[in-house]
Amino acid sequence: MKFEVQITIALKEGMLDPEARAIQHALNNLGFATEGLKTANVYCITVNAPTADEARTRATEMCERLLANPVIHDYCIEVAQ
Amino acid sequence: MKFEVQITIALKEGMLDPEARAIQHALNNLGFATEGLKTANVYCITVNAPTADEARTRATEMCERLLANPVIHDYCIEVAQ
Repeated sequence: MKFEVQITIALKEGMLDPEARAIQHALNNLGFATEGLKTANVYCITVNAPTADEARTRATEMCERLLANPVIHDYCIEVAQ
Repeated sequence: MKFEVQITIALKEGMLDPEARAIQHALNNLGFATEGLKTANVYCITVNAPTADEARTRATEMCERLLANPVIHDYCIEVAQ
């Protein structure tokens, strides 16, 4: 069965995020006053798995082994059919 | 009033996404069979605006002027209080 797995990976709270600071600075230079900006990467993966739980387990392994660095990243997994 | 604006920016359908291909290839090399992979960037921005509509309008301008390239990107804006 095919599942659409959405993995969102963001830096942990308190981690320095130079990309976010650069974007916020550029927005301010364009006249957009912002009070905070966070970035995240999203991966939407089509996974063939027997059950939704199995799809989630595989997505967790993908995060641990490749997509996220558990030292600095938090990740969140959503599974839809 | 403060609003949390979440902007998701992804390549339009049919655009070549080398990052997604590289990640899919790496996942396959690790033994994770995937049938499709898409990437997106998310920006969570705290905006001070009088109404939610005004916050959405500002976010749209941010996308048009800095965050997205309307030729190759689609973007989606969600506003929460």
